[in-house]
Amino acid sequence: MSNTTDLPSTSQPPSDRTRVRRVAENARYDRATLHAIIDAAYLCHVAFVDGKGTHCIPTACWREGEHLYIHGSNGGRLIRLLQDGTQACVTITHLDGLVLARSAFNHSMNYRSAMVYGQFEAVAEKQASLAALMDHIAPGRQSEIRAGSSKELAATTVMRIALGEAACKVRTGPPVDDTEDMEHPAWAGVLPLVQHRAAPVVDPLCAIEPPPYVRAWAHAPC
Amino acid sequence: MSNTTDLPSTSQPPSDRTRVRRVAENARYDRATLHAIIDAAYLCHVAFVDGKGTHCIPTACWREGEHLYIHGSNGGRLIRLLQDGTQACVTITHLDGLVLARSAFNHSMNYRSAMVYGQFEAVAEKQASLAALMDHIAPGRQSEIRAGSSKELAATTVMRIALGEAACKVRTGPPVDDTEDMEHPAWAGVLPLVQHRAAPVVDPLCAIEPPPYVRAWAHAPC
Repeated sequence: MSNTTDLPSTSQPPSDRTRVRRVAENARYDRATLHAIIDAAYLCHVAFVDGKGTHCIPTACWREGEHLYIHGSNGGRLIRLLQDGTQACVTITHLDGLVLARSAFNHSMNYRSAMVYGQFEAVAEKQASLAALMDHIAPGRQSEIRAGSSKELAATTVMRIALGEAACKVRTGPPVDDTEDMEHPAWAGVLPLVQHRAAPVVDPLCAIEPPPYVRAWAHAPC
Repeated sequence: MSNTTDLPSTSQPPSDRTRVRRVAENARYDRATLHAIIDAAYLCHVAFVDGKGTHCIPTACWREGEHLYIHGSNGGRLIRLLQDGTQACVTITHLDGLVLARSAFNHSMNYRSAMVYGQFEAVAEKQASLAALMDHIAPGRQSEIRAGSSKELAATTVMRIALGEAACKVRTGPPVDDTEDMEHPAWAGVLPLVQHRAAPVVDPLCAIEPPPYVRAWAHAPC
């Protein structure tokens, strides 16, 4: 857990490369916004460079305190490269709607995005962190499943990146048109998109009664 | 439009860096899968490198033929850098569900992802491409809105990347557990996630009747 005195202020970017320049009024540098965006995500995109170029790989993620966590097979490219201390950029984007303005130019999207810069480090307490991932996906499930064997754990790497160098960008609300376009006869508003939980699909080979987190799935907000 | 003889075969990756290694049976190299993943997306993540490090930026995207398109303000970092011919990696990921297996190790996600490697190039026919973006967002809207002025068009850059060096990865279906775990008494199945269209939210300042694409929004599949 980072010392909280190291955390950036809520109104200023923690570094030059996290300073939002385009539509800077949508920038958010506070912890609550960053945490909420990560906690609402099941996956992130991790960008990094190796000898073959720049890559952008989607992978499952979760948050513990002031770190974002990922995991993977020891042999995978992502894990192998990140273990070398390669600089990474992790981005999470939730698309909330299409913003239809009266002019073509003022069309936009409503979204919540977070970018985290830094280096990943391997996590020694793998079992505890993988339990936190399970809690993120299905709270209460950890005690029901067959736990990871020592061989499975040995084949898995858990890594984390500190949230110190991060920036968020959030757009909400209706379109913002130029004053001279307000009488233009085009419908204006937002076409919302939401990540929706559909009814659970039981494995045909499973005869176990659904536990509470499965029964609640399609009814809980995402 | 690329010459179709240049396109990769449907079963082999077009380059070494697009060869899917982890869970290689989920790899897809055919055009139909790639096109469908892009066409279902409103945004992509673009990874690239500049003097400040590796970045991963979300931005709106659309497809025309064998290219993925983005646009932005001339002055924005993304556009400025990509115009220099920087190598980029564009990734789109649709998360379709959480896959709950009987063992911790076999948990997974259902998803459709596409990665495209290459260099962006500026598009001269900006107006036609921006009309294609509008058609992607709201078919039929292009003729209703106030079109881009010459000043607005001049401030906007449209860029595209060829789809020649691309790979997709798709996972569907129930969990795959080890045979010896099949009797373990944990519920197994998929908790589906879908991108859902919620009811349009009209701009409070708009008195225009909703056009067909707005009325159909919440009822059409995403």
